[in-house]
Amino acid sequence: MVNITLTTDFRTRDSYVAQMKGAILSINPAAQIVDVTHAIPPQNVSRAAVIIDEIASAFPSGSIHLAVVDPGVGSSRALLAAEAAGQRFLAPDNGLLTVLFRRSAPARVHYLTEDRFWRKPVSATFHGRDILAPVAAHWSLGADIAEFGPPVSVVELVQLPIAEPWREGRAVVGRVEAADSFGNLLTNIREADLPPGDPRALSIVIGPRRITGISRCYADEAYGSLVVLMGSSGRLEIAVVNGSAQHVLNVADGTEIRVEPAGSE
Amino acid sequence: MVNITLTTDFRTRDSYVAQMKGAILSINPAAQIVDVTHAIPPQNVSRAAVIIDEIASAFPSGSIHLAVVDPGVGSSRALLAAEAAGQRFLAPDNGLLTVLFRRSAPARVHYLTEDRFWRKPVSATFHGRDILAPVAAHWSLGADIAEFGPPVSVVELVQLPIAEPWREGRAVVGRVEAADSFGNLLTNIREADLPPGDPRALSIVIGPRRITGISRCYADEAYGSLVVLMGSSGRLEIAVVNGSAQHVLNVADGTEIRVEPAGSE
Amino acid sequence: MVNITLTTDFRTRDSYVAQMKGAILSINPAAQIVDVTHAIPPQNVSRAAVIIDEIASAFPSGSIHLAVVDPGVGSSRALLAAEAAGQRFLAPDNGLLTVLFRRSAPARVHYLTEDRFWRKPVSATFHGRDILAPVAAHWSLGADIAEFGPPVSVVELVQLPIAEPWREGRAVVGRVEAADSFGNLLTNIREADLPPGDPRALSIVIGPRRITGISRCYADEAYGSLVVLMGSSGRLEIAVVNGSAQHVLNVADGTEIRVEPAGSE
Repeated sequence: MVNITLTTDFRTRDSYVAQMKGAILSINPAAQIVDVTHAIPPQNVSRAAVIIDEIASAFPSGSIHLAVVDPGVGSSRALLAAEAAGQRFLAPDNGLLTVLFRRSAPARVHYLTEDRFWRKPVSATFHGRDILAPVAAHWSLGADIAEFGPPVSVVELVQLPIAEPWREGRAVVGRVEAADSFGNLLTNIREADLPPGDPRALSIVIGPRRITGISRCYADEAYGSLVVLMGSSGRLEIAVVNGSAQHVLNVADGTEIRVEPAGSE
Repeated sequence: MVNITLTTDFRTRDSYVAQMKGAILSINPAAQIVDVTHAIPPQNVSRAAVIIDEIASAFPSGSIHLAVVDPGVGSSRALLAAEAAGQRFLAPDNGLLTVLFRRSAPARVHYLTEDRFWRKPVSATFHGRDILAPVAAHWSLGADIAEFGPPVSVVELVQLPIAEPWREGRAVVGRVEAADSFGNLLTNIREADLPPGDPRALSIVIGPRRITGISRCYADEAYGSLVVLMGSSGRLEIAVVNGSAQHVLNVADGTEIRVEPAGSE
Repeated sequence: MVNITLTTDFRTRDSYVAQMKGAILSINPAAQIVDVTHAIPPQNVSRAAVIIDEIASAFPSGSIHLAVVDPGVGSSRALLAAEAAGQRFLAPDNGLLTVLFRRSAPARVHYLTEDRFWRKPVSATFHGRDILAPVAAHWSLGADIAEFGPPVSVVELVQLPIAEPWREGRAVVGRVEAADSFGNLLTNIREADLPPGDPRALSIVIGPRRITGISRCYADEAYGSLVVLMGSSGRLEIAVVNGSAQHVLNVADGTEIRVEPAGSE
């Protein structure tokens, strides 16, 4: 039984997600469909790119991850199938796989051009249902990626600009990438990016606030405290214990966060 | 494996949807349950009627579609099982199947009266869990529709009033039926309703705005443009490229939309 | 096929829920995962405790119910596996199973300490993915509860305070526990708690409002009426026909509700 996961900005108020599931199940009735999220901010390809990277390591190998955040639907933008990190991916060629590919170079990437795998007629506004979903179903049944269309090399793909943390003297500067639904601020700083030394002695600066020490978990600190910790996806995050750092700090995505070694204040 | 889809106004904050799923799985542990949406506006039978019509053509034949938007629960309103368009449906007799039946006359419709298929005791406020869900499960296991209760003819069923587009001279007048979660305005005008001639030469009038030409897809026009196109369910829709037509136009459901042939301005 | 249900405060905007599902499916690809809700108010263990109690009787026996509302994640709070009411449960030891255990004393409760059942490395902030989900998967495949860690007796567990209704003369006084997504106010008063006599002759007092009689269903009363009825989980609830009692009455959780026999006004 192959898992097919779905990541979209469709929300679940309408029938769009169900129509995609129907298209999959019409071809492979035994597909195991798993919703990742349908609440990507509308047309926010960058957020989807991070989510796809987060789930790639959480599913059994061979799982198929279908992502549709696709403002260019119906235009000349291409659609892709890719194999990377032991997983399989389907997405528009709009940068959605950039974060994943930065960490795990794909083994194979193909354009989707072979319309014998598609649902007919193909709507100009819903390639998720009419192309990506049926291709996912055929892939889950044993089709080879090379059947879907010609190969493409990674350098030809659309890339999203990705902000990587950088060094300023002994400090590391990154940025807030998103807030999760608890209001935790997720950053682009990974453990390996941190200045050397005891994490409890580091200083984290965001706007006018300075926080000392990376905590191990939320419950280590008092109710309402601002804490910094290494989140479950291996990136630094800023949280308020039993509260929302997004509300308390009121910072926008992209805000800089600075990590300084002990004694640099 | 039979698919059972669920369409309700229950939201997913409470345990209602899960209780329905539990009731189904208690009878048929192998049922493949697919959520369509649980975010129908509360008690909005008309919106549910459109959604059910949209998904009927998206699922494998024989799928069971269970819909509960049921302000009359516990009263004398009847419950129905129906076969139409190669699919199976379960819903209150409150007009929820009107849009579907207008397009695909049902082969068989039966009342649900045989309580041996029900969960006991039957709550007066949750027939979705206690009657519809167990009937869906038994149906998926091979029960015949005629076992659930006596047949009923379509003319005896509760009908929703459905606004169809009409002609005014050479123009066609329809209305906005709903906004989807992208803020696209969905109308009741189908391709066959359009005035003859090149779709790119038609004028679409909504309130004080006039839009020229039906676009093929969102990406055909500039960021922020107001566009009209044939949506993925085959009905005209009004959109803002990478934005929300609902916010830009600020029109209510039911607002008239007028399609005029070239030269009628 | 064993059902594994999920109840969390994670929302579905992020990838957290999908990561848990991936962790389960990585161990048991045939697990049947059912979402109960991911919209528990953040860190509201009391609300989760009621939800878990509601679903325990709705699923096939042997189902595994995994609940994560876990402000203490990463601290010294324990994690539990329990068998009660013919069902299986996994949750933090923070009172989440209190309501269930009050009604159905557990047959067996064990701490989760055997890390051979866990996903490695264990994040300090996501035990749902790294401990509870893999344990659920192993349990669904036949592991015995005793393999997960040492037994614990109920008296040693963290308990939530639970407000039970009380008698004042001939009246019964309870409280509003939550509003559901229709705006119905759910109380802690069960049928057995009611004063004796005809339910249609009882008076229900909430704030300045007095409602006479317990209705059988919403549709028994006129559009917009305030009604009291026995809800589908067997507890008294206050509703507005085709409307929201939460909006009309504007009362907070915890508000007292008083049920008086006929003639006590």
